[in-house]
Amino acid sequence: MSSYGRYNSQSQPYAPSAPELPPPSSNYTPPNNYTQTSPPSSNYTQGYGYGQFSSSGYSNFPPGTNPDIITSFQMVDTDRSGFIDDRELQRALSSSFHSFNLRTIRLLMFLFKHPNESLRIGPNEFAALWNCLGHWRGIFERYDKDRSGKIDPLELRDALYGIGYAVPASVLQLLLSKYGDGSARRVELGFDNFVECAMIIKGLTDKFKDKDKRYSGSATLSYDDFMSMVIPFLVSYD
Amino acid sequence: MSSYGRYNSQSQPYAPSAPELPPPSSNYTPPNNYTQTSPPSSNYTQGYGYGQFSSSGYSNFPPGTNPDIITSFQMVDTDRSGFIDDRELQRALSSSFHSFNLRTIRLLMFLFKHPNESLRIGPNEFAALWNCLGHWRGIFERYDKDRSGKIDPLELRDALYGIGYAVPASVLQLLLSKYGDGSARRVELGFDNFVECAMIIKGLTDKFKDKDKRYSGSATLSYDDFMSMVIPFLVSYD
Repeated sequence: MSSYGRYNSQSQPYAPSAPELPPPSSNYTPPNNYTQTSPPSSNYTQGYGYGQFSSSGYSNFPPGTNPDIITSFQMVDTDRSGFIDDRELQRALSSSFHSFNLRTIRLLMFLFKHPNESLRIGPNEFAALWNCLGHWRGIFERYDKDRSGKIDPLELRDALYGIGYAVPASVLQLLLSKYGDGSARRVELGFDNFVECAMIIKGLTDKFKDKDKRYSGSATLSYDDFMSMVIPFLVSYD
Repeated sequence: MSSYGRYNSQSQPYAPSAPELPPPSSNYTPPNNYTQTSPPSSNYTQGYGYGQFSSSGYSNFPPGTNPDIITSFQMVDTDRSGFIDDRELQRALSSSFHSFNLRTIRLLMFLFKHPNESLRIGPNEFAALWNCLGHWRGIFERYDKDRSGKIDPLELRDALYGIGYAVPASVLQLLLSKYGDGSARRVELGFDNFVECAMIIKGLTDKFKDKDKRYSGSATLSYDDFMSMVIPFLVSYD
């Protein structure tokens, strides 16, 4: 078993790097052992890509979509094009989640948008993104034990570990050098930066695991593979 | 021989991803065959990391450093700390090269700074960066055949090929989707974006080739290797 934890072999159309939703039970306990191999059951894909009209009448949302999600989308999609761009997404999320900075917003759009689309998302992708953020917020709150609105590097490591990503300390230190004054140890992450870190780790790990079919912890990559895996992450930063 | 071209096996302290300088001859013709294995002769490392005082008296520049480089550094290092930050670098380069956007400046600093330093560079790294940009400008002008100040994707491909990086079209398309309106074919790159593209390609390729000792075009990477290779590039974007 590799060091980067359990895998979810279910492929998810249009959202290849989205984390799994927690299972329906509210008593969900995250796995605390990276050798665990079975992913939590997930309803993530069940309502995904379904019909053209939800119960609210707004097209292209999966049936049973939370009305708050539909309302938030409609509020910013003022021209009813069925798509929203980065700044509209920023507005849509600011009321229910957080006023994310545009860098995080663009990373989220890049990870959730249809691969053939430019940087815009439709109802399906918006609903998946919304649910994913709800999942991350639950994790963030669970590990922000003193309710300060910030988590420290050890809590981040535990949070990623809790959802199945056993990230080496050296890698986390590299990532955290992006924030704060250069000393990864003193960094504290708010929800915005937590989501960015978690999505980078999840996105890259999922790309790597696609090439590590035997879950051995190593993979043989061609130069083309390597470049094609990595460059989209760089491109997402504008 | 791998598809990503010839390698320069000389390791260059503090500037692992800097391209080679062209050889002293002004009749230098770039290699046009990616199976070529011998790098062009280079004077890049010869003056690198030498003595504490150049002929101008400013400490830490390699002997024989072009006085323009020293003057440009001194102009922005007003506190004589011996280091300059991102905005100072932007100012230092604007008179002789281009008013680069801060995204490109930070990528350049990240690629040239001493690995143990925060995002700042000293005289040695500044001189290496300056010479490298002179090299890129020569290449840019050679491929900007109509002197429009822009090069198109095919010219970019040829330019990278000319210095030994045979980048697959699919990878270039991914990279170019960062610019323009989403259609990689219609993109035209000014010098700023050309430098950014070229440095991303060069930086990632050099990382990969470090793991592909036999130059086979593929490498076996551990998960930790992979994450440690890639994350610094993401971190360089602020």
